[in-house]
Amino acid sequence: MPQLYHFSLDPYCRRIRLVLGEYHRDAELIEERPWDDKAEFLQLNPAGLLPVFVDDDGTVAAGIEAVGEYLEDTLVDRSLSLLGENPEQRAEIRRLIAWFDGKFHHEVTAPILGEKLVRRFVSREAGGGSPNMNRVRLALKNIRPHLEYIGILTDDRNWLAGDELTLADFAAAAHLSTLDYLGDVPWRENERAKAWYQRIKSRRSFRPILADQIRNMPPPRIYADLDF
Amino acid sequence: MPQLYHFSLDPYCRRIRLVLGEYHRDAELIEERPWDDKAEFLQLNPAGLLPVFVDDDGTVAAGIEAVGEYLEDTLVDRSLSLLGENPEQRAEIRRLIAWFDGKFHHEVTAPILGEKLVRRFVSREAGGGSPNMNRVRLALKNIRPHLEYIGILTDDRNWLAGDELTLADFAAAAHLSTLDYLGDVPWRENERAKAWYQRIKSRRSFRPILADQIRNMPPPRIYADLDF
Repeated sequence: MPQLYHFSLDPYCRRIRLVLGEYHRDAELIEERPWDDKAEFLQLNPAGLLPVFVDDDGTVAAGIEAVGEYLEDTLVDRSLSLLGENPEQRAEIRRLIAWFDGKFHHEVTAPILGEKLVRRFVSREAGGGSPNMNRVRLALKNIRPHLEYIGILTDDRNWLAGDELTLADFAAAAHLSTLDYLGDVPWRENERAKAWYQRIKSRRSFRPILADQIRNMPPPRIYADLDF
Repeated sequence: MPQLYHFSLDPYCRRIRLVLGEYHRDAELIEERPWDDKAEFLQLNPAGLLPVFVDDDGTVAAGIEAVGEYLEDTLVDRSLSLLGENPEQRAEIRRLIAWFDGKFHHEVTAPILGEKLVRRFVSREAGGGSPNMNRVRLALKNIRPHLEYIGILTDDRNWLAGDELTLADFAAAAHLSTLDYLGDVPWRENERAKAWYQRIKSRRSFRPILADQIRNMPPPRIYADLDF
């Protein structure tokens, strides 16, 4: 069986777990905590980044860009593709993936995860300790225009990149689900973004994500609730 | 003719200009200075990022991930592809693109361009002024392990991702050519990385890049010299 090196609250790993479900592919999950000693893991990805996917034939795809495209590239049943039907659609999907994996990650996910999660687990010498709440507050403010953008996109379209569900939706939902685990998404402020998230959260591929539990850090009740 | 919105010292735009040459495709170049007022440009890419490619049929590909893949996706002569021949090669190429566009950009290109270029052109209120030389020095130190990595990769392989020239080489060369324009690549310290760069710099597709001139900021003499 293929192997996926992942960490449960990493948004990039979450996207891969979600799309594996959509593609009806199984993988053995191997947890790699981003702040642990990485000597062995660096053999798999010298950049030290998750996710890494090791296929049955030994092919290693390392990093979200490589893994995301590799799974599409090796899809046997093309009807399961989440990457659109023509170059124009694919360009729009990839623009939106970059929006969430780049801009949203930089402005929202990375500071919140860094302050509220990573600092709990690393030593004081490595930057551990109490979260810098100013940085958290700024990130929580930054999330609002992104929810508005999701609302605007889904006003005109069924899903973020068009009428079909695509990798762009899973990229966005992966980031938001990570923040939702920490109780940090102000869903009440944007009904349209919430309606979009409700639809994607109801998919079967989302179930394993909703069952995630970090030790000593349980999610809020609404995290796994489909009617949140 | 298609249009490419670009800025000459932006490493992502440079990669697209290089591969357009390799694919024998023309595009009208439209300069968009990253620090200018962007109201009109935001219509093309709401994220505000370069490059943006507008094809003859009006298709807009926005951002390096979308443009890079779009040009491959619409290639008529597949023998010109720079994205490998099978999923394993493509995974390795995309891993390395992410290395340079993510890690190298974050550690080296972004701080050097930010301090030495952007600060010259923006107002004091927007962060303009003298460069923070501590940040520049750290980035110049960070470049060394990257040159070593290029040296190690090209010890075993003709090019970065394998025996064929690929998008990974152009991603790396685009970043390095930007820094080379500023005289900031210590080529003498790594002969193998230098030999790789000499080979890619000699390609016809590199010529327009080597003719770039930023007003009041000429490159050092060796910038355009193939025998540097």
